Amino acid sequence: MAATEITKLQAAPRVNLYEEVSGRILRLIDNGVYKIGDRIPSVRALSQQLSVSISTVTEAYRLMEDQGRIEARPQSGYYVRPYLAHLPEPATSQPIVEPTPVGNGELVMRVMRDTADPRLLQLGAAIPNPELLPLGKLSRSMTAVLRKDKNLGSTYDAPLGCEPLRVQIARRALGAGCTLTPDQVLTTVGGAEALNLCLQVVCRPGDTIAIESPMFYGILQTIESLGLKALEIPTHPRDGISLEALRYALDQNDVRACLVIPNFSNPLGSCMPDENKKALAELAAERGIPLIEDDVYGELYFGHERPKVIRAFDKTGNVLLCSSFSKTVAPGYRVGWVAAGRFQAQVEYLKFVRNVSTPVPTQMAVAAFLESGGYDHHLRRIRRTYAKQVALMAQAVARYFPEGTKVTRPQGGYVIWVEMPAHVDSIELYRVALHSGVTIAPGPIFSARGKYRNFVRLNAAFWSDKVKDAIKNLGRLAAEMKK
Amino acid sequence: MAATEITKLQAAPRVNLYEEVSGRILRLIDNGVYKIGDRIPSVRALSQQLSVSISTVTEAYRLMEDQGRIEARPQSGYYVRPYLAHLPEPATSQPIVEPTPVGNGELVMRVMRDTADPRLLQLGAAIPNPELLPLGKLSRSMTAVLRKDKNLGSTYDAPLGCEPLRVQIARRALGAGCTLTPDQVLTTVGGAEALNLCLQVVCRPGDTIAIESPMFYGILQTIESLGLKALEIPTHPRDGISLEALRYALDQNDVRACLVIPNFSNPLGSCMPDENKKALAELAAERGIPLIEDDVYGELYFGHERPKVIRAFDKTGNVLLCSSFSKTVAPGYRVGWVAAGRFQAQVEYLKFVRNVSTPVPTQMAVAAFLESGGYDHHLRRIRRTYAKQVALMAQAVARYFPEGTKVTRPQGGYVIWVEMPAHVDSIELYRVALHSGVTIAPGPIFSARGKYRNFVRLNAAFWSDKVKDAIKNLGRLAAEMKK
Repeated sequence: MAATEITKLQAAPRVNLYEEVSGRILRLIDNGVYKIGDRIPSVRALSQQLSVSISTVTEAYRLMEDQGRIEARPQSGYYVRPYLAHLPEPATSQPIVEPTPVGNGELVMRVMRDTADPRLLQLGAAIPNPELLPLGKLSRSMTAVLRKDKNLGSTYDAPLGCEPLRVQIARRALGAGCTLTPDQVLTTVGGAEALNLCLQVVCRPGDTIAIESPMFYGILQTIESLGLKALEIPTHPRDGISLEALRYALDQNDVRACLVIPNFSNPLGSCMPDENKKALAELAAERGIPLIEDDVYGELYFGHERPKVIRAFDKTGNVLLCSSFSKTVAPGYRVGWVAAGRFQAQVEYLKFVRNVSTPVPTQMAVAAFLESGGYDHHLRRIRRTYAKQVALMAQAVARYFPEGTKVTRPQGGYVIWVEMPAHVDSIELYRVALHSGVTIAPGPIFSARGKYRNFVRLNAAFWSDKVKDAIKNLGRLAAEMKK
Repeated sequence: MAATEITKLQAAPRVNLYEEVSGRILRLIDNGVYKIGDRIPSVRALSQQLSVSISTVTEAYRLMEDQGRIEARPQSGYYVRPYLAHLPEPATSQPIVEPTPVGNGELVMRVMRDTADPRLLQLGAAIPNPELLPLGKLSRSMTAVLRKDKNLGSTYDAPLGCEPLRVQIARRALGAGCTLTPDQVLTTVGGAEALNLCLQVVCRPGDTIAIESPMFYGILQTIESLGLKALEIPTHPRDGISLEALRYALDQNDVRACLVIPNFSNPLGSCMPDENKKALAELAAERGIPLIEDDVYGELYFGHERPKVIRAFDKTGNVLLCSSFSKTVAPGYRVGWVAAGRFQAQVEYLKFVRNVSTPVPTQMAVAAFLESGGYDHHLRRIRRTYAKQVALMAQAVARYFPEGTKVTRPQGGYVIWVEMPAHVDSIELYRVALHSGVTIAPGPIFSARGKYRNFVRLNAAFWSDKVKDAIKNLGRLAAEMKK
């Protein structure tokens, strides 16, 4: 805790001081320096110890309270809370590591259609909470760009997309540890299109692609629609894809490409440590296997620092980095992007063929919003809210679900992955929950083989007392299922 | 010319009376009742003969003047002009009817990239003239929809797309002779995506697809990118695809699907007669071959009546109708659509997988513009302008291009297809024209086999004195090419 360390950290421009302070205390908690029930230093004591202001420490403690990590006890101080600590995590997944075509399309479509029903409580698809989107500012940005350029949208844009947006994306990429020029970025119709273009460019029908397991169903459906086979790799709920298992699988199988969600994997919420990211970038480069990286949740970190992308460790243009503004700005604007490295020219050509280019007004509105400078402030606000909501939902699951239930400890994003006792059938749970006005995402849609039958993914973005009641009810329904 | 006929026509709601009057005179000219140089009835005489007002006839004659079909001679009256009549048309195309993979991608990309260069005169890609787009109204529509719905774009839309737009599309389909419900329509990122989705749903890699020849290069590139083979069918410059040739080709080849642009084929400008459309719909249904129809130019007819789509003759859901608002509203908004008949569920699923749904704000802005009722008025205006510009450009080609040049007589759209003497190399012409600041579309990109080496497609949308000079220069460059 030397003053020199603080000095160094103050120089880093992207992290607020209070976030740095809270991150520091959390690391001490995680490392067991402060255990559950322990009192942490008082505001005054820490302020002196770290040579920061009282208000910075107060802010840091409020953040940790929001996240459910500490609690204030009147006349006494701040104490470490049993943050999910009494809930076991699911183990590293154990998929059958064998290339397999994907099924399950119909069930996915049903879960997606539920999002259109305003009467349902949306715990299924990973839609962001509209109240946590900057819609007013975005709408004003749109009006401004239309006023500024009377010819907006009057011609076919080039396949790369609008330059002002690509400039903003390139600037933000620095924060994820990677240097991109605007020409290395191509805008897409959401993150989904970015992933689709990459897979179509690097694979041919019949090819095998290695992926994390469990894996976001949208990507599984893309794999299916392109006639590819999925090779599901064991994945740790906190550290992400197992590199040992992947290495072994690459030895045993003819794998054409690898696709991962390194930052806050959907549905696990896992975040690969930097050394794993580096190792994965090197492994893929060594084997000549293109690595597709989906960073759509990367900005929604709960910790003190924006995690790096794998692309930051890429030296050969082998990593195709995909992301979008759907989770943080507006899903219905469908603005995503890809930096496809050595595959850029092929992706550009395919984008032109598929739909010429991404619509101009929506791109320009997002660009103007980013230029206006309100994005980082907005992100700070929603990160804190989602962190809190994820913690509260996980705690509610712990309280109301049947004994033996396990839950992930996501480090970002807004979904949790729940492992129920082995006999609980999540598809059946989906059906009965729907009758009570709640939609959830059953586990089997996250696997090419329909595994994870006793798992559900729950969206914490809409947390409220009503959602808490719904969790209680889901727990009851799960408990009532016969062995 | 009985009064009863006029009465009947007045009852038809979609055609203006003056357009009906001009259509009637044009038919008499086309049938040789009035020959080139003949004087047609005076305004007063025709007004009495047809029992319509003087101003209606005046308007009709002005329309025909705009189209270059008649000319006023002072103190004398109106005379039939030599409207392209001294220019021979190209013959029915004679492609090698044999399935073939597509090449030419790089040249297409170069032509498309030219559109981004504001210093070039745009006679290449078929971009509409921004001055003939309703950009101001569209921008006001966007502002209005954002004001009306503060949550616009806040969630993932369903794959079908925005209902208000689908309602408007279904209403307009009536004008093309076909009854669609909003649920039968799915919105897309431009017409290109609609065609891509259809081809991906009905074909598998290696399949053969029958198409008109010459064919719009974008569609050829899609065919290539999906690993399909193109079977190029002889096509008449006025009547479209040869049904005899197609029937024979279907007997000889294993064809998976058929794709045509029945209304104002790009690049020919041909329009299939209704009986051919009906026969093609029946042929495809008989053989169980899905028929993909691109109607992107359908609203830009020069005649007195909106031509029907093939879908109007479809009884089995076998026709997949694709279109867009790129040519008439705004290409950069990327709003297109498909009514995929019996393939609708598959197209919907694939759309979801590829990019979830089309961006919401651009769709809603187009819907609001259509609802506002200004679209038909706008279309009347631009149809008249494009008809005039196409005629003027064709006449300039006739005047300035080398002897032996032939040119199409498009019945809609805004491009012409020019056959130069056999020794003129259009790729070379493209190169030298570029040096003089003009971009054109060389013939070989309209063929899977690189045929049409001595053809160019010219875009008449930007007609001006400067374009006239460019045509003169192109003619000179072509004439200078050695045999």
